[in-house]
Amino acid sequence: MDYQQLIEEVYQEVQEENLKGKVADYIPEIATVDPNQFGIALVDIKGNVFGVGDHQKPFSIQSISKVHTLTMVFNFFNSKLWTRVNVEPSGDPFNSIAQLEYEKGIPRNPFINAGALVITDALCSKFEKPIEQVSAFINELAGETCVMVNNDVKNSEMDHGERNTALAYFLKSFKNFNNPIDQVLEVYFSHCAMEMSCVDLAKSFSFLANDGYSIFADRQVLTESQSRRVNALMLTCGFYDEAGEFAYKVGLPGKSGVGGGVAAVMPHKFSIAVWSPELNEKGNSVKAIRALELLTDKLSFSLF
Amino acid sequence: MDYQQLIEEVYQEVQEENLKGKVADYIPEIATVDPNQFGIALVDIKGNVFGVGDHQKPFSIQSISKVHTLTMVFNFFNSKLWTRVNVEPSGDPFNSIAQLEYEKGIPRNPFINAGALVITDALCSKFEKPIEQVSAFINELAGETCVMVNNDVKNSEMDHGERNTALAYFLKSFKNFNNPIDQVLEVYFSHCAMEMSCVDLAKSFSFLANDGYSIFADRQVLTESQSRRVNALMLTCGFYDEAGEFAYKVGLPGKSGVGGGVAAVMPHKFSIAVWSPELNEKGNSVKAIRALELLTDKLSFSLF
Amino acid sequence: MDYQQLIEEVYQEVQEENLKGKVADYIPEIATVDPNQFGIALVDIKGNVFGVGDHQKPFSIQSISKVHTLTMVFNFFNSKLWTRVNVEPSGDPFNSIAQLEYEKGIPRNPFINAGALVITDALCSKFEKPIEQVSAFINELAGETCVMVNNDVKNSEMDHGERNTALAYFLKSFKNFNNPIDQVLEVYFSHCAMEMSCVDLAKSFSFLANDGYSIFADRQVLTESQSRRVNALMLTCGFYDEAGEFAYKVGLPGKSGVGGGVAAVMPHKFSIAVWSPELNEKGNSVKAIRALELLTDKLSFSLF
Amino acid sequence: MDYQQLIEEVYQEVQEENLKGKVADYIPEIATVDPNQFGIALVDIKGNVFGVGDHQKPFSIQSISKVHTLTMVFNFFNSKLWTRVNVEPSGDPFNSIAQLEYEKGIPRNPFINAGALVITDALCSKFEKPIEQVSAFINELAGETCVMVNNDVKNSEMDHGERNTALAYFLKSFKNFNNPIDQVLEVYFSHCAMEMSCVDLAKSFSFLANDGYSIFADRQVLTESQSRRVNALMLTCGFYDEAGEFAYKVGLPGKSGVGGGVAAVMPHKFSIAVWSPELNEKGNSVKAIRALELLTDKLSFSLF
Repeated sequence: MDYQQLIEEVYQEVQEENLKGKVADYIPEIATVDPNQFGIALVDIKGNVFGVGDHQKPFSIQSISKVHTLTMVFNFFNSKLWTRVNVEPSGDPFNSIAQLEYEKGIPRNPFINAGALVITDALCSKFEKPIEQVSAFINELAGETCVMVNNDVKNSEMDHGERNTALAYFLKSFKNFNNPIDQVLEVYFSHCAMEMSCVDLAKSFSFLANDGYSIFADRQVLTESQSRRVNALMLTCGFYDEAGEFAYKVGLPGKSGVGGGVAAVMPHKFSIAVWSPELNEKGNSVKAIRALELLTDKLSFSLF
Repeated sequence: MDYQQLIEEVYQEVQEENLKGKVADYIPEIATVDPNQFGIALVDIKGNVFGVGDHQKPFSIQSISKVHTLTMVFNFFNSKLWTRVNVEPSGDPFNSIAQLEYEKGIPRNPFINAGALVITDALCSKFEKPIEQVSAFINELAGETCVMVNNDVKNSEMDHGERNTALAYFLKSFKNFNNPIDQVLEVYFSHCAMEMSCVDLAKSFSFLANDGYSIFADRQVLTESQSRRVNALMLTCGFYDEAGEFAYKVGLPGKSGVGGGVAAVMPHKFSIAVWSPELNEKGNSVKAIRALELLTDKLSFSLF
Repeated sequence: MDYQQLIEEVYQEVQEENLKGKVADYIPEIATVDPNQFGIALVDIKGNVFGVGDHQKPFSIQSISKVHTLTMVFNFFNSKLWTRVNVEPSGDPFNSIAQLEYEKGIPRNPFINAGALVITDALCSKFEKPIEQVSAFINELAGETCVMVNNDVKNSEMDHGERNTALAYFLKSFKNFNNPIDQVLEVYFSHCAMEMSCVDLAKSFSFLANDGYSIFADRQVLTESQSRRVNALMLTCGFYDEAGEFAYKVGLPGKSGVGGGVAAVMPHKFSIAVWSPELNEKGNSVKAIRALELLTDKLSFSLF
Repeated sequence: MDYQQLIEEVYQEVQEENLKGKVADYIPEIATVDPNQFGIALVDIKGNVFGVGDHQKPFSIQSISKVHTLTMVFNFFNSKLWTRVNVEPSGDPFNSIAQLEYEKGIPRNPFINAGALVITDALCSKFEKPIEQVSAFINELAGETCVMVNNDVKNSEMDHGERNTALAYFLKSFKNFNNPIDQVLEVYFSHCAMEMSCVDLAKSFSFLANDGYSIFADRQVLTESQSRRVNALMLTCGFYDEAGEFAYKVGLPGKSGVGGGVAAVMPHKFSIAVWSPELNEKGNSVKAIRALELLTDKLSFSLF
């Protein structure tokens, strides 16, 4: 398989389709990025890296970082984690607080905001310097120093972070939150404000295509079973209110972020990261989703 | 009408009924009060004071203070206030956050927690030293220095204040909150932690029985129309999820608190405060509710 | 008190204000009534009748009939009724089904649709020919034959009755519905489709102003305590999502219908019915509400 | 691959684990089946059939039939179908009506009850004799006459069908229901009451393992794209509130029913049906789920 040719074809075809969306506008630092940027990076199971377009340009990974923090925490808590957060898809908006009220403080899954806050809280229970350690962990997964926290983005998000703060206090009222809220939120907004290129992001997801073993870190990051769990969660819950649609169109476990990035894996084949800032109305990158759809078509790959 | 004899009869009969409830247990300082305490104070329209039992013993007025803060704020904002908080009863629990999500950050009424937080926020916009000024205002209404903030209660409530904090941040996410949340919450928990005796509480409610004019302050505290509005809100929303039942059994506008107090008014006749710590399952004092029911029976009073 | 002069003044002033609303448009038979019609009838405690405008013209009483059916049923079941339907105001829309799901099939009060269906179901358990008997009962209360079921209206509502039918089946799934659904719905839509004039409607409400005794029927229709319960329910739940507002502005227990009618009582003084088809956005007649507000102002009456 | 040996091993191991659950008790006809029954049938892509245990014994397929009816309807309406029903997982119970209220009558997916009713309604719009035609269609897919509607089960479910009837009327109130409700419900309860053996069920699912082509019917039943859509829906929404868990443990698109059956496919490999009546608390057969988990383990198969 010539992956380089494949992603170049996909890149070209998507560019020709001239798809339009809307850059996320709730943070000035993200609202002002050049909307025409578009990059793809693919890392095969042996660690070979392929890229096209803006694949080396760092962008704000946002919610994609929830996969990295979940991975760190999963190693420590293992299945006990699932007493604090469920593993099922949610029919409510990603930032809904009503669901938490009806389900007594147990978030539906680790990728909706409430669930990701529980994960970051668990992270703060185990790591002394969580922000540095998340960065170090991702650098290790990517095999190089590549992560930078954009403090302007972080600060902007903290300035508009009332809803996440409300979720954190609400979780605490159900005793599902253990650390000082300010500290956890700073860690949360920091990891969401991390910037990486498509290349490094794809490398950092490589272990999920490889039963938990990272070539770049040269170690078993998760057990095979844990790795499957993370992939299952991405497949059923990784795309906000478009998980079912993505499973059908693309069929790969993946996670999107409002910065316009999507990271996904084809187990035992490759990991891939695609980035383009314009989003559809469900909050997922229009070009990234289309690129992944074309790519699986060309590979004649289908889960189904 | 011999009010002294009336409340003594009521007091006696309620004591003989030996009603049982459960002292609020979420704050140590309130959980440990002597549950057998019981007092009634009535202030007629001319300012005569009548009392029986523990009517001079200070207790934690809790949510009853929401009537005082609403009054302070109402004077400044008048009907503009109702763009930020509605005037209708709620079918949800007093501390529900789901209702706020469905109704886009506008609380149903000023007595559920979310609504009271909006009122306290408005208070902080107009008053430089809100805690001192709430105390001074209540003292003025009662015609004497009588209010004390119990800092142990306040601190306990702040330590368990996650749910109210969540409400505040959620309100802020809808831009229905203007002041620093910590500051507003401190004011909120302070006024809820105020202690007053039945006598002083009844005096402080006297203006609501008198079309807004306070004999003790010797001034028009609210316009007649505003005073009616506060009374209408107390009648329809003053007793958590027992407003309809209280309207039927007692038929007086009033407000209860989890400290076991109830303050109510019979317009153009008297104001009254009753206190006994044991609560029914809806969170209202069993003896206070029963006392008011007997009292209106004996007066052959009925709204209906 | 010259009630005739009073209602004429009110009538005149309201007419001059030229208030506008919107006639209910979901049934052709109601949508096409002349929107300018406006009548007031007042019946004092002695049975004297006063009227102005279109006070003798029959109109569709709609939800006002829920007071009559509640009265019939209350007599049979007494307080056992409140195991099937609650007595508290609802923060949800009058036709909400979600509330029923969260509260396990117990409607919030007898005036929201779900609650009224439970009442009509109870009615069908006790009366062999419920439609005839509701008519006969109202005729008795009014002291003359006056009620007519408009079958066109009834049939129209049955044709668009899917939501009420859904509520009935949902109640049945919680075992809070005992009779054949079709039969109960026919009775329900029949009593909603009854037509009466303001005069007869005011007469039929007279017993609620008189501690349960009807002058026209010459008997105790409800006990004093039951009569108070009905009035308390009307005050807290009688005006859809405008109960708090109506309590403040008017302060009388009452019930409105989408036909543009409002019936209310001033206990121990009079009952009153006002009708004008144009509704405000909450579904209550603009002219009727305004007329009652002016009337209580002129009487210097206030609950508060 | 020796599929016969594989399923025999799985059968043996599951039997030894002695798993316990609870037979569905809401219908007498299902509540009284022998709980120890357990069968597995596997049909490979070439049409070879393998079976073990009670694989030839007919059982009530219940919700599994929703896959068959969706398939029939999908062919006619194609993507227009998705204007009436969404394709995303739901966080609410499978029979929730509140979700329908909040989302204006559009069910979350075709497998929750509300969605399946819309599908059956669409079926009734296109087929003159829907029950016969569903039976005929399933027989065609299975390559033999095998389907029988158990009228006792159907009648029992109709007798307790209030909640589904409520859903149907509620859908109609949103104009998302076109045919007479009684007729549609009879079709719905009839297809849920169909009985098939594991062998025939696995054969009837074979086309979903084969890009839409049925060997037994010898025709393209769905396009490849449609077939993927059905599989994607089964993977994300096929197991009530256990879809995420099933995706992780088993990783096959599938559909369960409260009769204790599960039908699933491994695309391009085989279809499989497992049946055992005892259910876990989420409503899925404990032995069937465990069997599928063991089977994919033994095959070293994983989506992830």
